[in-house]
Amino acid sequence: MEIGFLGLGIMGKAMAMNLLKHGFKVTVWNRTLSKCDELVEHGASMGETPAQVIKKCKYTIAMLSDPCAALSVVFDDKDGVLEQICEGKGYIDMSTVDAETSLKINQAITGKGGRFVEGPVSGSKKPAEDGQLIILAAGDKSLFDETVPAFDVLGKKSFYLGQVGNGAKMKLVVNMVMGSMMNAFSEGLVLADKSGLSSDTLLDILDLGAMTNPMFKGKGPSMNKSSYPPAFPLKHQQKDMRLALALGDENAVSMPVAAAANEAFKKARSMGLGDLDFSAVIEAVKFSRE
Amino acid sequence: MEIGFLGLGIMGKAMAMNLLKHGFKVTVWNRTLSKCDELVEHGASMGETPAQVIKKCKYTIAMLSDPCAALSVVFDDKDGVLEQICEGKGYIDMSTVDAETSLKINQAITGKGGRFVEGPVSGSKKPAEDGQLIILAAGDKSLFDETVPAFDVLGKKSFYLGQVGNGAKMKLVVNMVMGSMMNAFSEGLVLADKSGLSSDTLLDILDLGAMTNPMFKGKGPSMNKSSYPPAFPLKHQQKDMRLALALGDENAVSMPVAAAANEAFKKARSMGLGDLDFSAVIEAVKFSRE
Amino acid sequence: MEIGFLGLGIMGKAMAMNLLKHGFKVTVWNRTLSKCDELVEHGASMGETPAQVIKKCKYTIAMLSDPCAALSVVFDDKDGVLEQICEGKGYIDMSTVDAETSLKINQAITGKGGRFVEGPVSGSKKPAEDGQLIILAAGDKSLFDETVPAFDVLGKKSFYLGQVGNGAKMKLVVNMVMGSMMNAFSEGLVLADKSGLSSDTLLDILDLGAMTNPMFKGKGPSMNKSSYPPAFPLKHQQKDMRLALALGDENAVSMPVAAAANEAFKKARSMGLGDLDFSAVIEAVKFSRE
Amino acid sequence: MEIGFLGLGIMGKAMAMNLLKHGFKVTVWNRTLSKCDELVEHGASMGETPAQVIKKCKYTIAMLSDPCAALSVVFDDKDGVLEQICEGKGYIDMSTVDAETSLKINQAITGKGGRFVEGPVSGSKKPAEDGQLIILAAGDKSLFDETVPAFDVLGKKSFYLGQVGNGAKMKLVVNMVMGSMMNAFSEGLVLADKSGLSSDTLLDILDLGAMTNPMFKGKGPSMNKSSYPPAFPLKHQQKDMRLALALGDENAVSMPVAAAANEAFKKARSMGLGDLDFSAVIEAVKFSRE
Repeated sequence: MEIGFLGLGIMGKAMAMNLLKHGFKVTVWNRTLSKCDELVEHGASMGETPAQVIKKCKYTIAMLSDPCAALSVVFDDKDGVLEQICEGKGYIDMSTVDAETSLKINQAITGKGGRFVEGPVSGSKKPAEDGQLIILAAGDKSLFDETVPAFDVLGKKSFYLGQVGNGAKMKLVVNMVMGSMMNAFSEGLVLADKSGLSSDTLLDILDLGAMTNPMFKGKGPSMNKSSYPPAFPLKHQQKDMRLALALGDENAVSMPVAAAANEAFKKARSMGLGDLDFSAVIEAVKFSRE
Repeated sequence: MEIGFLGLGIMGKAMAMNLLKHGFKVTVWNRTLSKCDELVEHGASMGETPAQVIKKCKYTIAMLSDPCAALSVVFDDKDGVLEQICEGKGYIDMSTVDAETSLKINQAITGKGGRFVEGPVSGSKKPAEDGQLIILAAGDKSLFDETVPAFDVLGKKSFYLGQVGNGAKMKLVVNMVMGSMMNAFSEGLVLADKSGLSSDTLLDILDLGAMTNPMFKGKGPSMNKSSYPPAFPLKHQQKDMRLALALGDENAVSMPVAAAANEAFKKARSMGLGDLDFSAVIEAVKFSRE
Repeated sequence: MEIGFLGLGIMGKAMAMNLLKHGFKVTVWNRTLSKCDELVEHGASMGETPAQVIKKCKYTIAMLSDPCAALSVVFDDKDGVLEQICEGKGYIDMSTVDAETSLKINQAITGKGGRFVEGPVSGSKKPAEDGQLIILAAGDKSLFDETVPAFDVLGKKSFYLGQVGNGAKMKLVVNMVMGSMMNAFSEGLVLADKSGLSSDTLLDILDLGAMTNPMFKGKGPSMNKSSYPPAFPLKHQQKDMRLALALGDENAVSMPVAAAANEAFKKARSMGLGDLDFSAVIEAVKFSRE
Repeated sequence: MEIGFLGLGIMGKAMAMNLLKHGFKVTVWNRTLSKCDELVEHGASMGETPAQVIKKCKYTIAMLSDPCAALSVVFDDKDGVLEQICEGKGYIDMSTVDAETSLKINQAITGKGGRFVEGPVSGSKKPAEDGQLIILAAGDKSLFDETVPAFDVLGKKSFYLGQVGNGAKMKLVVNMVMGSMMNAFSEGLVLADKSGLSSDTLLDILDLGAMTNPMFKGKGPSMNKSSYPPAFPLKHQQKDMRLALALGDENAVSMPVAAAANEAFKKARSMGLGDLDFSAVIEAVKFSRE
């Protein structure tokens, strides 16, 4: 199976490499073409432009840094995906973009007769390297079905969620639960500490009970040391909380706990913590002038 | 090692049985004495009153239904623990009581020369039977150390948390985190559903990620079926949220997410859901007249 | 002083009439031209198109129903404001629009050499008729200064708030305070009632103290009768809360009370109360299944 | 009409003086007796103990500093109110106490055959001097009716609210609305400021609209100067929010806005602002590290 691959950032490179390792023929492209070299050494072909890649491959996956890059790769004059996309071809955008961007790309691709799937992922560098991503796919069902062999290599599980936009929405829901949980956890750690209890012991207790989860285990010890190396920056978490609340607004869902959590993240941003890990929200709970 | 055991409710009976099975000599008492029969068949002795049990045993554990029962067993004229407690003896109350009750009992016991440990547990019937409780102990350190062999049989882990009251406080902190997490989870499930996503698929996605935990796995499927068999009644969860917020009040800890979660539990109570499982708070999130 | 006036809805008609009464020469236009008749009877001239009105008058005020209408009056091919606006002319848009719409109109007008002021108002039908509006103006200062005689007729006070967009923003801030106050009031009324106190007596007590204000006095009695005739629809109030929270998001201002109030309005919307007065949010506080 | 008066603090002295001025015969007592001198100069008699005052007067009003003082005046051995209270006599406690204290005093007084009214007031020094207090009375209706002439002198309005405890509860409801309003106001002022608008102009705009009220007018200007001279200390306001939320808890009323406001006051307390005026909560909204 031949696959085009656009975008060789941290995530994209690891994903394309996995495809190669599992016997896929891969044609790669990256805005800075030199980033293609390593992949080519491992057997990949290289395209000069997105349009070239599309022309060559029946299926093309994109993994770009943000909505702006995702749009530009598709719509660029002469070089863009739209120049060559046509009936019979499939385009799978696995970048993390908002539902609106996804819908715009979908409309353009299908307008040319192509098929489109959005497939944002849950998981970062390590799961990408290990082929352990969770893929939240939506859009053209036949394309999804045909792409499953690639998804099986890239992730531990891929979900088909229906119409385009649902992948982006599901990611917001998941991140909202995560943001509220992080606040619940932070308040607990601070309450323990200020009440004369050990917040390290609280970690041990939580770890033994029904709430034990990898996030508490992974982040708790560094939070107790006021260390927040950015795995998922707080400002991005806050943005996702805001977008999830907006999704609730659209559908008339009242979510007071998420709203309170969002305001705590905003307070943390106002404290200059936006670029730290989102677990730094505990600093907003902790803060007191005394 | 000889141990007295006061209170043979669901929890107490399972715990006393575990002690017997592991070779402890156990003398039991229960307000309704007939409940002692099964234990006696398995080799336990029986005391006629709490005072008799205390007289006979160096160490006595109590597992009573509520603060009122815990106080009455200690303070009852003629028959109570206080009648016989004295230097050299230890009293371990594992009932779930507030810090104030615990302090009152502690004062009375130590006033007579006895030693006291509070040891509320995390976990319910099944963990009690399996000896898998988590024990949040506080009070006399020497008594705690001497009691460790019994704790090892009753629980998978026992924590020594310092002065009397800390066991009760730690339990509040843990339950507060649990209550806020349950709200985060509920809001996510409802948001998914109202946004046209499958809340069952959300469960699958959460289960694969960094937030996966036994509580979401255990309660999610029934919540999606609007079924809330009471493992931990909502009204008790709300009471613990309130007490945790009061603890925060005492120590000037602002906890806006827990406060929002508490109001959601109160809304659920006002909807008549207080006796259902605390996961029924999702009904307060779901509710709409349309 | 000659003034053009575009838009003769409930508000616009009352405002144009006031200008006439105070000796201004007024040229009116309305999409449905027949609505101009009454004004013409009182001495107004009529324009066939917005462009005609602009051509005739040095100053033109617009009072349109929503951002869409505001944009179309300016940008319409052939007939729109842009066809005739030019150096020396001033355009004052008093419609309630978002900052973005305002900035777009400003750019177009000034691009043609014209001057622009946004001037959203606080107050509805009655204050419009009585010339008692509050005008939140921003934009070209010289135009504002020249327009003051007209503002003095239309409102009891006009504020100059600086650059275009500030009028819209100030209105959001004011409406946010209003929405949170309405929730505070609603919670008080329900708490009184459920605690066995009279919510009518609470109104009397509030009326005598430092919190007495026309909104509580005007809406309290009907709220106590569960009557919510729509003066300001709940869905619009909720939209303004959302936009105010977004403004806070932009500027990293954490506003937990407004966020909680917004969620209460959303709950009320989910109960089907969006078209009632925003005071109907009390129904979301009141609601219980029992 | 002869009235006893116990407690000559700032409030009590002003109130007793008003009674004298309006022709009442007043017998005063104060723990520090020398504080009676000024009143005696104006024609009052003096009692050596509360018991003496009760013995002499058919009606006795108390205005004491806190629940502890209120209880001690009633229950003191030999000298307390209980020594002389009896059928035919009335005791009116206008101190600010919790419902529980009020109920305790009521039980003791009525147990001796006396009649009791609680009458906490809304308003501080100035209204006390001007006879412009608002009186929230509850308890024995016949005593209330007989005391109206005195209430008419002390306040601009007195309310009869039913059974003992209702006065205290109504005061909590009023103060809760006040605390939430203060948060709404604070968030608005900060949002204006951080959005590049003038918070002084916001005060002017609010003052002209439907939300205008003496509290915003009185406290706004000093809040904009970060000045918080304590008229009503923040820690007391926060205590009342907490007690109002507890009242809501008892009656299953969910109040998310008051809960968010309470957490903001707690944050302010943790910042060391408890002894400043409750308007200092704006500092918790404002706070950011940058």
